[in-house]
Amino acid sequence: MSFINEYKQYLDIVEEWLRGVLPPESLSNDDFPEKKIYEAMKYSLMAGGKRIRPVLSLAVCNLLNGDIKEVLPFAGAIELIHTYSLIHDDIPCMDNDDYRRGKPTNHKVFGEAMAVLAGDGLLNLAFEIMLRETIKGDNKNFSRLKTAYMISTSSGVKGMIGGQVIDMESEKTAISYDVLCQMHRKKTGALIRASVLAPAILLDAGKDIVDKLENYAENIGLAFQIKDDILDFEGDSKIVGKSTGSDTVNNKSTFVSILGIEKAKELLRTSVENAVNALNGMNNNNFLAQIAVFIAERDK
Amino acid sequence: MSFINEYKQYLDIVEEWLRGVLPPESLSNDDFPEKKIYEAMKYSLMAGGKRIRPVLSLAVCNLLNGDIKEVLPFAGAIELIHTYSLIHDDIPCMDNDDYRRGKPTNHKVFGEAMAVLAGDGLLNLAFEIMLRETIKGDNKNFSRLKTAYMISTSSGVKGMIGGQVIDMESEKTAISYDVLCQMHRKKTGALIRASVLAPAILLDAGKDIVDKLENYAENIGLAFQIKDDILDFEGDSKIVGKSTGSDTVNNKSTFVSILGIEKAKELLRTSVENAVNALNGMNNNNFLAQIAVFIAERDK
Repeated sequence: MSFINEYKQYLDIVEEWLRGVLPPESLSNDDFPEKKIYEAMKYSLMAGGKRIRPVLSLAVCNLLNGDIKEVLPFAGAIELIHTYSLIHDDIPCMDNDDYRRGKPTNHKVFGEAMAVLAGDGLLNLAFEIMLRETIKGDNKNFSRLKTAYMISTSSGVKGMIGGQVIDMESEKTAISYDVLCQMHRKKTGALIRASVLAPAILLDAGKDIVDKLENYAENIGLAFQIKDDILDFEGDSKIVGKSTGSDTVNNKSTFVSILGIEKAKELLRTSVENAVNALNGMNNNNFLAQIAVFIAERDK
Repeated sequence: MSFINEYKQYLDIVEEWLRGVLPPESLSNDDFPEKKIYEAMKYSLMAGGKRIRPVLSLAVCNLLNGDIKEVLPFAGAIELIHTYSLIHDDIPCMDNDDYRRGKPTNHKVFGEAMAVLAGDGLLNLAFEIMLRETIKGDNKNFSRLKTAYMISTSSGVKGMIGGQVIDMESEKTAISYDVLCQMHRKKTGALIRASVLAPAILLDAGKDIVDKLENYAENIGLAFQIKDDILDFEGDSKIVGKSTGSDTVNNKSTFVSILGIEKAKELLRTSVENAVNALNGMNNNNFLAQIAVFIAERDK
């Protein structure tokens, strides 16, 4: 199967699962006076996107010959956590963004207060779903529990939220290359790592496999972020070229601002190579290797 | 032991546990570039308050002759969830409050963006803690899992967050008595119920005991809210009496606005009686009965 077809196959599974997570739109307001929050949660959850995190989980599950049904609720929970973080990121006191993926941001449609609650609701729902899955009484119970715990530390102050704080603080003062790496390892890396490791923990993979996958995940996380910075730099350059450029100046530390564009591109190539090499010796690793290349070559 | 002394004993245990939840202030900024969020989380977590929720959990634990150490992390997690909900409630796009418990609100001290993240961080940490406890390998594992799941549904869109949404929507249009009750059952009732039921589930109490405790919890939750409305009404009356009163008018539906002050006070008395009666036949129920009375007689 081609890379694109395999990606689409995973994507369809993820989208169908996500559609079923929230109550149907036919709910009556009388029975559910809190209906509005479901609309707000669904609006952002179903707003498209690459779904790279749950797709990674399903691909790793396949690599390990696991059952997609076992992995899907945890892969989906990670996408819920990712979505809540985007909603909160966009509100006026954070990044104050009016559009995301070409659609008005959540607070633009539902108001700021509802956007805060919709984000809270999605984070909470992720844990409800993981706990509900874990409670299902069988011998996979403990693996599920370890997976839910791993995801909780990845999304919390030691992981994603901590990374967001470093990011915010870095807007006040310049940061070192080490702190930049630490920020990204937490802010985006932690959830990507969680997506890759979740199936391995769920399926009780051995330490050797977990180590390889962790190495792979850290390198695609790094590649993802460097590519983001390069895209931003090249996008900004285009805008600067077309306009006076004065309002596009941004002093935020990035891989490009710290390393320069050439070194950043070199580091991107190296991290993709490292990601691919990390999978050496694993059967059926073609799709994951291509994801690493896809991350480095995407144009948005 | 007097009621006040027993309350203080539980309170001290809770405060000590909460103090240990976040990393020490001596952390260096170099090792923890995300240090600021720990300060923000700690600021609100250690800002005092009655700690009625974890105190209820410890008291129920005692009633059931359980081990406080087993119950404490779940009781504490509920307090973390309660604290996050207060931080998010106070931000400008929600209630826009400058003070809570006589201190500047979180966003007043740390800024709005950090307040949003500190709230997110506390919610996430609550689940990290409950999952970490649940993972401890022994035969209490499954009871802990059921408790964590029960708490997750209590704090989510079917519980507390759903109640906040109904509350927000109710500011736009008048609501019926039924919707008012539903709102409070979710907004404050759900976490109070969770505090009372958590020890019972953790300690594998029988259905008869769980039913009695659930009945007790629902009645103190109701009493708590009616008392809040009565205090607000009496506070507003005082302010109106002293000022021109024009900016204190509030058309929000409350137990007082819907039932009138006399009927509200009668319903308060009935719910305290019902709470006390729910404990009939349980040994050592004196403290919990007194908490019901305390809720109805508090002056703030």
